Amino acid sequence: MIVRPRPGALKLLFVMRGTILPRVLPHVLGIAALSCLVVWTLQAGHLRLPVTSPAPLSLLGIALSIFLGFRNNACYDRWWEARKQWGALLIELRAFSHQAIALLDDGDAEVPVVGRQAARRLIHRNIAFAHALAAHLRGHDAREDISRFVAEPERSRVLTSGNRPGALLREHEVELAALRREGRLSDIVWGSLAARVHALMGVLCACERIRFTPLPFAYTVLLHRTAYLFCLLLPFGLAEALGWFTPVLAAMIAYTFFGLDRLSDELEEPFGTAPNDLPLLALARTAEINLREALGEPRPEPLRPVDFILP
Amino acid sequence: MIVRPRPGALKLLFVMRGTILPRVLPHVLGIAALSCLVVWTLQAGHLRLPVTSPAPLSLLGIALSIFLGFRNNACYDRWWEARKQWGALLIELRAFSHQAIALLDDGDAEVPVVGRQAARRLIHRNIAFAHALAAHLRGHDAREDISRFVAEPERSRVLTSGNRPGALLREHEVELAALRREGRLSDIVWGSLAARVHALMGVLCACERIRFTPLPFAYTVLLHRTAYLFCLLLPFGLAEALGWFTPVLAAMIAYTFFGLDRLSDELEEPFGTAPNDLPLLALARTAEINLREALGEPRPEPLRPVDFILP
Amino acid sequence: MIVRPRPGALKLLFVMRGTILPRVLPHVLGIAALSCLVVWTLQAGHLRLPVTSPAPLSLLGIALSIFLGFRNNACYDRWWEARKQWGALLIELRAFSHQAIALLDDGDAEVPVVGRQAARRLIHRNIAFAHALAAHLRGHDAREDISRFVAEPERSRVLTSGNRPGALLREHEVELAALRREGRLSDIVWGSLAARVHALMGVLCACERIRFTPLPFAYTVLLHRTAYLFCLLLPFGLAEALGWFTPVLAAMIAYTFFGLDRLSDELEEPFGTAPNDLPLLALARTAEINLREALGEPRPEPLRPVDFILP
Amino acid sequence: MIVRPRPGALKLLFVMRGTILPRVLPHVLGIAALSCLVVWTLQAGHLRLPVTSPAPLSLLGIALSIFLGFRNNACYDRWWEARKQWGALLIELRAFSHQAIALLDDGDAEVPVVGRQAARRLIHRNIAFAHALAAHLRGHDAREDISRFVAEPERSRVLTSGNRPGALLREHEVELAALRREGRLSDIVWGSLAARVHALMGVLCACERIRFTPLPFAYTVLLHRTAYLFCLLLPFGLAEALGWFTPVLAAMIAYTFFGLDRLSDELEEPFGTAPNDLPLLALARTAEINLREALGEPRPEPLRPVDFILP
Amino acid sequence: MIVRPRPGALKLLFVMRGTILPRVLPHVLGIAALSCLVVWTLQAGHLRLPVTSPAPLSLLGIALSIFLGFRNNACYDRWWEARKQWGALLIELRAFSHQAIALLDDGDAEVPVVGRQAARRLIHRNIAFAHALAAHLRGHDAREDISRFVAEPERSRVLTSGNRPGALLREHEVELAALRREGRLSDIVWGSLAARVHALMGVLCACERIRFTPLPFAYTVLLHRTAYLFCLLLPFGLAEALGWFTPVLAAMIAYTFFGLDRLSDELEEPFGTAPNDLPLLALARTAEINLREALGEPRPEPLRPVDFILP
Repeated sequence: MIVRPRPGALKLLFVMRGTILPRVLPHVLGIAALSCLVVWTLQAGHLRLPVTSPAPLSLLGIALSIFLGFRNNACYDRWWEARKQWGALLIELRAFSHQAIALLDDGDAEVPVVGRQAARRLIHRNIAFAHALAAHLRGHDAREDISRFVAEPERSRVLTSGNRPGALLREHEVELAALRREGRLSDIVWGSLAARVHALMGVLCACERIRFTPLPFAYTVLLHRTAYLFCLLLPFGLAEALGWFTPVLAAMIAYTFFGLDRLSDELEEPFGTAPNDLPLLALARTAEINLREALGEPRPEPLRPVDFILP
Repeated sequence: MIVRPRPGALKLLFVMRGTILPRVLPHVLGIAALSCLVVWTLQAGHLRLPVTSPAPLSLLGIALSIFLGFRNNACYDRWWEARKQWGALLIELRAFSHQAIALLDDGDAEVPVVGRQAARRLIHRNIAFAHALAAHLRGHDAREDISRFVAEPERSRVLTSGNRPGALLREHEVELAALRREGRLSDIVWGSLAARVHALMGVLCACERIRFTPLPFAYTVLLHRTAYLFCLLLPFGLAEALGWFTPVLAAMIAYTFFGLDRLSDELEEPFGTAPNDLPLLALARTAEINLREALGEPRPEPLRPVDFILP
Repeated sequence: MIVRPRPGALKLLFVMRGTILPRVLPHVLGIAALSCLVVWTLQAGHLRLPVTSPAPLSLLGIALSIFLGFRNNACYDRWWEARKQWGALLIELRAFSHQAIALLDDGDAEVPVVGRQAARRLIHRNIAFAHALAAHLRGHDAREDISRFVAEPERSRVLTSGNRPGALLREHEVELAALRREGRLSDIVWGSLAARVHALMGVLCACERIRFTPLPFAYTVLLHRTAYLFCLLLPFGLAEALGWFTPVLAAMIAYTFFGLDRLSDELEEPFGTAPNDLPLLALARTAEINLREALGEPRPEPLRPVDFILP
Repeated sequence: MIVRPRPGALKLLFVMRGTILPRVLPHVLGIAALSCLVVWTLQAGHLRLPVTSPAPLSLLGIALSIFLGFRNNACYDRWWEARKQWGALLIELRAFSHQAIALLDDGDAEVPVVGRQAARRLIHRNIAFAHALAAHLRGHDAREDISRFVAEPERSRVLTSGNRPGALLREHEVELAALRREGRLSDIVWGSLAARVHALMGVLCACERIRFTPLPFAYTVLLHRTAYLFCLLLPFGLAEALGWFTPVLAAMIAYTFFGLDRLSDELEEPFGTAPNDLPLLALARTAEINLREALGEPRPEPLRPVDFILP
Repeated sequence: MIVRPRPGALKLLFVMRGTILPRVLPHVLGIAALSCLVVWTLQAGHLRLPVTSPAPLSLLGIALSIFLGFRNNACYDRWWEARKQWGALLIELRAFSHQAIALLDDGDAEVPVVGRQAARRLIHRNIAFAHALAAHLRGHDAREDISRFVAEPERSRVLTSGNRPGALLREHEVELAALRREGRLSDIVWGSLAARVHALMGVLCACERIRFTPLPFAYTVLLHRTAYLFCLLLPFGLAEALGWFTPVLAAMIAYTFFGLDRLSDELEEPFGTAPNDLPLLALARTAEINLREALGEPRPEPLRPVDFILP
């Protein structure tokens, strides 16, 4: 995610980093070059070009705007829903951890240390879950982070599972059921903590849904194709009316359409590592900070953006 | 569902498989041929054609874009809601199964094997539910898959029911109530598992809603008709202004409008077997893998896409 | 609701039944006739008509498309929400009934027949609720259906109530409270069944909201008026540019705008008996089938569409 | 709210009451008069007017349509959410009351009259809440209605509170807690009734949110200004192309834009007393009817629309 | 937030305070000046300007309107969701406080004063939470407000925490768990209060999500750039057709586009202190008033708008 102080209105016009411009620039320049060629051909009289008015292109352009707007909307919704799921992750992890400490770590019990250890184990597993989820969604290996917070023999069970975050939640359920059987958690209290685990499962499955089910492929192709063909036709439609202004306007339109198309691509998959994707590592670190503070353990530093980009 | 590495921007222009192009190509070519005929007639002077400006058509075209955009939006929402329901299915099946094992399969009980068997029965029924739901929505027969996971006499009851996934949920409720009566589940724990069964019923009914209530038929007809009539008029509106460019532009507009119309048709019924429909078999297989891993049973292989299409 | 196999792309162009065409045809023909008159007057030179370009009309036409699109969207949302509420009805009725049987109809109890009779009474009342709700929303009298499933003296109490579905839910609450007092339902189990009754009350009130609160009247008038005035002006704007093509295009535009306006009217009130309205009778019948199967009673046949229309 | 049988398509064109026309008529006539002046000036040759084509205005007009459409959408969502909150109010009041009667008014108890009186007190307080909420949102004084249903000393506490509906809910909580302490409500049953009170608090706060947080003021100003300036420029843009048709078209466009602007104003604040606002008094009366029927008390008459307007 | 009586339709045209005009005026005037320059150059014949028709610009303008409309929509949704979260805050704080008093402050208990003190402590912590959240989101220091309501040693723990509102919720959980251990709260009652704390955690995390995750930076840049470039090109497109009307229309269009762009910026971050941002201080004060009234303590005055702006 790009984190930077909002530049002033003027500076915003010339900013490069974090924008979509570098990636669409070759295509935009290509359209500008084509425009120059068309205008030169037309004015030199080498060729009689068939298109003579921008009106028919307008029709296609407006239809394309509406459809690109739709795709953009759908992709933004995916991105924002992904962020909401990670927000829900923080809610549940923090609430779970506060409750676990308050309910288990009781000074009045005869063997308080057992409750305290159980609470610590649950919360460390929560931290591991945050790291494991981030890695699961990005296709990385969180072996190291998981190992820091989960002891053997659980560690092996989790690391050999086909779905590590899911395996961590299974361990949660087993431990909560054991605490209930031992009488450390009453039924109601067990129900309250189990509801948190269920919500974490909801976050996991929702993230997997966004990660592994892209927008229907045919959309992407249909809109991508129309946008490119439209921009290729553009110079022919504008050349006679605009003359040497054609490259300027064609490049601007191409920049807007290609830019939105590319940005939608980026937002469609919000868990990647492109500049506008979600900062999963920073969010997992935030969870670790919050949970370690709740445990009274030393907190790591929050991640800082590098070149305005939060990883 | 089409699963393929995103082709590069250029290659995306020429991809065929998984796109809507093959299905609309005849219509697009028809419009192009009509355009050629109109331009030839016009330029040969055989006929005085009445339409002389693209502006009036623009008006209809923009209105049509807005309405097609709306239908497209509604159909995409159905498709995405369907995917969300299958996401919820995975949430509930996994959460149910984790809890069932943790709560029933207790080594401390005097007759642990009874609890373990009950848990196994519940989870196998969950796997059967996933397969039965996929078959129910696609109009297939999941007799074989259900038989693998459900024993007699329950198997006969389920297979003769008019609604097999619903019958499986009824068996769930009966078994949970029996476990509660036998004292194996406390009231609160029964309530937690029963909430999962209720959520599965919610998934079943929501999928049935999407499957058996299409968009109002009049929409489909109204927009389909307007799109075709519009594209048929298009050559008459463009021929004078564009000359031999008419077939190119008319074909592009027809491709965009017919493509979106056809894609909306496909997304409207997300449980079918068209390339852009949801991969119900693969999702049911995922559920089986997750649940079998939780039971410690050997996991089947995940389904792989064939020709980029996940079934 | 119209239920028919999707006709092919070509046949779709000429289908009449279930479409909006028959109802807007007179208006569309009126616009076409006006167009002919205008073109004839113009070409015969009888009259100097003031409008000379379609551009100003375009502006109004696009604004109108956007606003009609909005109203259409709002009406479709009402229709789809109504369908969702009936989906929720099926969820709750089925879940309630499965639980009631599983929990009350216990072979181990000393007087099992009492529990079985209570479960049967609850489920029969659920069937009556489905029929009563359908009749309540359509302004019909479901006296007969209610009487089939509810015995005296409850029957009289329900039939004399000002809100029969609401009265049935009140009877549910009274019976559940009695079962709890008698010790047949533990507190938790009572809570689970009472949650179903609460959800049914939610369905009832949501359906009443959609049924008795139409879109603000001023919308309907504003958009209806603008659409008609626009179509009346259309021939004047197109005649000079299009000549004898004017009636064709004006009729097409009128068909699109009037059709969408009328379709929105129909969807705005989804509980009526127009062809595109929801099939309440068929849905209530589905509920009856599901619930009778759960009870082991003979199931009635599902309702079949007549002339493609499901009642 | 305007309640009237839908007039026929033709009559709808000339209806006045309940429409937005009376309120925008002066402005529309003003635009028409300006148009006449412009056309007369132009044709008389007194003045050389600068605008010569409607195309540049089209651009502004379409942008304006999109933005007005957005504001309209947001305002309609507020209106519909407000209606949903009042629907939720009815759900909760009816469910609460049914449960209170079923659970408290038990013939088996030794002192049944105490339970019956408690139930009656709770339900009367619910009726008072509906009236108090309507008055709170409209800035009226519901002293009389509250006094009918709440006895001293509670009445004084409620009437002197800064937030009367909130004070009624506080009394609910206190009474439920007392009933629980007295053993008349088990913990679970208390929890079920307390969930209703919580939901009522949700309705109260949501209504306050809609009532006291209007759309950002800058929106209203920005769009209002642009709409007026646009309509003032319109005659200059249309006069040359349309001649004496200008006043007709300018008035139509002004009617559409001003009408939508004004209607959005009305829907933005759905709790007012404008014709298209929600019928809070009628809804509160409905609640009173439902709750009194549940108590077996005589029901008042439902409110009827006066001049098609339900108060 | 701007709170003012809605000015009349005419006065609305000239209002300045609280509108976006002052901030975009320099840019609008710049566009007007550029327009004058272009028109003068053109008419004086000094220069042959290339653009000759507004049609190609229209295409870009409409696409831009659609995309700006999308961004505006997304930003408004953030603003309104933020307001909903603060509405949820009020719901939960009031419901929590009512329940805490009703359940803990019981005259029947042997040592009622203990329960009363616990209730008072919980509610004071709730007030502190509202102030701490407002300060947390605005980057202010609420040390003073927190100190007024939270005693030592808790005060130090909260003030040294990295996330003060979160620390207050942790104290809530600890206190509730202690009250449950002491037998002052039954399990069910504890569960009801703990659900409130969980909801408060949800509000905190949702507000943090809105506060710390802006819209993808590339959007802002892409649309901002296109809007500015478009307005810079505008005079060239309009000058020939409009002559000296160009500055008027160009300024109007620039005002609309820049205004919407700037307003979106402001709504994107709803917790700031710009005029259209949410009145966090006033909302926190409202919470304090409600909760102090519930406690029977003297209520502070509500905050009043200064120059129509509620802080």
